[in-house]
Formats: sequence, structure tokens, C-alpha cells
Amino acid sequence: MAAHPAPAELLAFAEDLADSARPVAMRYFRTALDVVAKADASPVTQADRAIEALLRVRIEARFPDHGIFGEEMGVKPGDGPVWVIDPIDGTKSFVTGLPLFGTLIALVDAGRPILGVIDMPALGERWTGQPGQALFGGAPARTSGCRTLREARFFTTTPEGFLGADAARYRRLVSQVGIRRFCGDCYAYGLLASGHCDLVAEAGLQPYDYLALVPVIEAAGGVITDWDGAALTLGSDGRVLAAATPDLHGAALAILRDRDI
Amino acid sequence: MAAHPAPAELLAFAEDLADSARPVAMRYFRTALDVVAKADASPVTQADRAIEALLRVRIEARFPDHGIFGEEMGVKPGDGPVWVIDPIDGTKSFVTGLPLFGTLIALVDAGRPILGVIDMPALGERWTGQPGQALFGGAPARTSGCRTLREARFFTTTPEGFLGADAARYRRLVSQVGIRRFCGDCYAYGLLASGHCDLVAEAGLQPYDYLALVPVIEAAGGVITDWDGAALTLGSDGRVLAAATPDLHGAALAILRDRDI
Repeated sequence: MAAHPAPAELLAFAEDLADSARPVAMRYFRTALDVVAKADASPVTQADRAIEALLRVRIEARFPDHGIFGEEMGVKPGDGPVWVIDPIDGTKSFVTGLPLFGTLIALVDAGRPILGVIDMPALGERWTGQPGQALFGGAPARTSGCRTLREARFFTTTPEGFLGADAARYRRLVSQVGIRRFCGDCYAYGLLASGHCDLVAEAGLQPYDYLALVPVIEAAGGVITDWDGAALTLGSDGRVLAAATPDLHGAALAILRDRDI
Repeated sequence: MAAHPAPAELLAFAEDLADSARPVAMRYFRTALDVVAKADASPVTQADRAIEALLRVRIEARFPDHGIFGEEMGVKPGDGPVWVIDPIDGTKSFVTGLPLFGTLIALVDAGRPILGVIDMPALGERWTGQPGQALFGGAPARTSGCRTLREARFFTTTPEGFLGADAARYRRLVSQVGIRRFCGDCYAYGLLASGHCDLVAEAGLQPYDYLALVPVIEAAGGVITDWDGAALTLGSDGRVLAAATPDLHGAALAILRDRDI
């Protein structure tokens, strides 16, 4: 088995993967100019598969021992860490011409994400995160100092994303925040890392939707957990809460974890 | 009184206005890196006022007979057509770092918009419209061929924008569309003009929010009216429905105008 690569080498490789995914995404973006396409033939599905196929080939060539877990093509077991990939996060943005879709790349070791890339192909923007270092466009990213729900700028991708008891907890949370926005997918977490919004809550996410966000948010000074306050891992339940500060996270968590709502 | 300027001259001037607004918007965008700022001192308010002041000076110098109606500084009466300006449409996007805010410029003659510019400073994208010609980045823009609600990609800026009986009509409409997105402000109408989405419905808009959209949507082949199917004018009630085709517009209108819901 190969020597464990250095964090800087892994990040450079992850950025190189994101670089190679961008032109593939842009080749398909805004190419469907008519009504909703059928699932298998849609440009977003083609982009999803083309990007994941490309990244898997490149990862297997560079780190043959590593595992791979992608949205489209499942799991390749490995002895080392696992690359977790969402080739196109924000498919509804992609199919409506919104440039808010992203490519997510995480590296997970012993169940925990140790590297994350949030890349926005149509915007030419990128966040990266490793323990101790969150970058946006190569410059340090830092969350805001927002500590109260009343002042918080809140994002969730859609208010329709909460089911059953989650919906009641979500409504109680959203009624207390300062500004609400209902879009973004991974982009909302990047904006949070850079201090432009303060709070994001979602449910129903998959590991490839949230693992890449964790190193970015944490290294930028924020807090990101599930709705019980537990660290996000490959096995989390898909409920995600990210906040600019521990105080704000605590205030939101008190509502979202309340089993009496 | 000066001779009536040619449509091409008016459009070139409107684009020149949009060019001059862009750097002002970008000077303030993403400069508030902390909690929600107080209204009067916020970067978006500063950007709003700085842009409108600049555009008013330039319009008065070039067309001293024309009227001006801006979001921030009200009405300047005139003998000729009226320039209607929204310096920053999408203030909530602006204050959360989302690049989806726009500058809207319309020219209104006898109550009807005869020229419209939808400019997106942070995206570097622009739609223009005059009777017979809708352009995106200088190339012709054309709506999709979507004719049914079931296939429609629908946008509204926020589901919280509908009050009273409007909310019930909105819920009935949105329950029947193919894809729902809750963001966009003016950008949604640009995406509609370029065929990337098919249907937009909103309420509570002001004349400076909707007048610039009309020449763009209509010249791109779409239909844009109030919720009774009437043309949008300076005196409309702020309910807006835009669709890619007459059939789709009719299907949505049948729901939104239904007084029994």
C-alpha cells in the first residue's frame, strides 16, 4: 500500500479534479431549451454521469487504494480513504438555467470528511476546506459573527424539503430568522463560509450532498452537524444544520432537536 | 421639445446606463460580512441610491424632457416618455451574497413599456427588449415551447409573496407545475425569455419591478400580463404572470383569475 499522501497533495489533486469537471458541466448547461426532459436523456443526467465517470477514472489512476462513492455510480471499496463525489449538486438549478449548481468533492477518512471542495462551474467560484484552512478563490474564508436567530440570514434550498415532524420544527425555526432565502443547494454553504449568510438547515440530504461542506464550514469558523448536534459522517440521517457561530448553532439546534414540536 | 429619438438610440442609451450602473453595484456587493445591517446604512441601500442618483443625472442631461420614476427617489414629471428604474432588484439576494440581483431600466410611453433592460451586474449577463427584438448578450432570445403546466419549470421569488386569496390561487397553480424554484427576482424573467424556465408568477410587485420585463418577454415570444390577463402598465396592481407560450399562459391564468378559489 502506498504511503499516506500529504494534505496539500490531496487538496491539489481535489482541485485538479474540480478543474477537469468544470468544462464537462458547462458543455451541458443551458442546452435543454424546452420543456422538462425525460430523466435518462436530460442534459443534467448526461453531465452528472460524464463528470463522475471522468473523476472516477482519474482517482483510480492516482490513488488505486482509495475508495470511491459517487452519486451516480455507487461504491468502489478501497483500503484507504474514500472520495465522495456529487458531480452536479443542484440539478433543479441546472435544468432551469440557474448558475447555482456545484460539483462537490470530499475525502473521507475513518468516516469523517477531512477535505472538501465546493466548486461552482458556471460562476467560476470555489471554496476548499481542510482542518485549519478554508479558502474562497484562494483567499481565507471566514463565517460572520452572527449569534442570534433574529439577525440571521437563513437559507434552505426549498421549503418543500421538510416532511412530517421535520416540517413543524422547520417552520418554527424559519419564523424566527431575519431574512429567508429558498435556493442555493451547496452554494448556500459556501456563502455561509464567506460570511454572506449565517444559517442553513436542510433535510433529506445524501452523504455526497453534505460531506464536502463540512471541512469548508468548520475551517471557516462555523459549526455544521446533524439536527441532534452530532458530527456528520457517511452514516448520518441527512438532516443538516450549519451556522456561522456556536451561539447561533445552539439557538437553531434547540428548536430543531425539540422532540415536543 | 426635441425630436423623438429613434428606438436604436434609446436602446443604446439604456445599455449605456446599465454599463455605468454595474461597477457601482459591484463596489457594494458582498461588503457586509456580518449580521443584517440596519436599513439606512446597509450596502444595498447605498448601492440603490448611488445607482439611481447616477442614472437620473445621466437621463436628465441626455433627455431633459423625459420623465423619471425611480424606486428610491420618486417621480420627476416630464413631457416625453418616462424612464422607470429599479437600481437593485433583488435586495435580499444582494444582502446574502447571491449574484441574482439585477438593475432594471424601462422606458414607458403612454403608460406602456416600449424598451426594457434586465442587467445582472454580478453575473455579467444582460437581456434587452424592444418590440420585435429580444436579446441576451447580443444574441436573439427565445422562450421555450412549453404549453402545459405539468411540464412547466416554474419560478417565483418566494412562496411567502402571496397574501390572502392570492395565496390559495398560488398554491393551486404551484401544485400543478413540473419543477418549482423559489428565487430569482428579475432573473427568473430573463431565464424565461431565454427558454430556461417556462412560467413565473408573482404578486406585490411595483412598476419598477415589472415594467422592464415586459418588452423582453414579449419580444422573446412569451406572454406577460397581470392576473386578469390585462397588459402591464404603470397603474397595474402588482400581480404578474409570465409564460413561454400563449397556451401555458392561458392555463395558468385560468387558475389565477378564478375568483372562486
